[in-house]
Amino acid sequence: MSSHPIDLEAALAGFDAIWSPRIIARINDYDVRLARFSGEHVWHAHERTDEFFLVLDGEIDIALRENGGERVVTLPRGSVFVVPRGVFHKPSARAEAAVLLVEPAGTSSVGDSHEEVPGHVEVTTGHPAWTGGRP
Amino acid sequence: MSSHPIDLEAALAGFDAIWSPRIIARINDYDVRLARFSGEHVWHAHERTDEFFLVLDGEIDIALRENGGERVVTLPRGSVFVVPRGVFHKPSARAEAAVLLVEPAGTSSVGDSHEEVPGHVEVTTGHPAWTGGRP
Repeated sequence: MSSHPIDLEAALAGFDAIWSPRIIARINDYDVRLARFSGEHVWHAHERTDEFFLVLDGEIDIALRENGGERVVTLPRGSVFVVPRGVFHKPSARAEAAVLLVEPAGTSSVGDSHEEVPGHVEVTTGHPAWTGGRP
Repeated sequence: MSSHPIDLEAALAGFDAIWSPRIIARINDYDVRLARFSGEHVWHAHERTDEFFLVLDGEIDIALRENGGERVVTLPRGSVFVVPRGVFHKPSARAEAAVLLVEPAGTSSVGDSHEEVPGHVEVTTGHPAWTGGRP
């Protein structure tokens, strides 16, 4: 996808939109995406795939519905977490955070099952990122 | 694999060995690995998979054989790069660096084709990492 290294800070500087992932790299049929999180996303589940989160800046929470209950995992900067396939989850961030995601290309940002999507959350499989090359 | 977030610094603190990747997470049939790079790895190629590098600390070089020649890409901290499948490459680091890798589980650290492997480079598909849970 890109024949040169991509600086994550520069790629993040290329967009402001929250909950609107940008695709910065491709690993076989997987996307590496960058996203800005702020406020609450929606409860959703990816039926056929795990989802990997790495917090680059700030801190995020991921609420999870498991074993008939709910729990929240908090991911500070520099931590990673995998939401298993089929698990309903709702990411959120009290202040703006930057996150690197890895998931199969074509994975919807709101999964296969989700609650009603509010206006501040985009339904997308990711947008091309500006990654430092000439357009 | 882990039901709690993994702190990358803590996971890195759990091992000293260079060129000896630790598996910190699983995304479907992909591994997320951490590795310490120092000095030179070996020329090798993964015939069936791309390989993703994210530099967490320090700086690495990846020499690539492409189009009948060689080039070197330099990845400073906070940058990412994907080596395409089939491309011979040789990672190196002038000073010790810490790298997060994503590739299919079972991918050998020296690929499917490689030059002679010196003693300081381990041939491995990755080791379990200590990720903060109870053993």
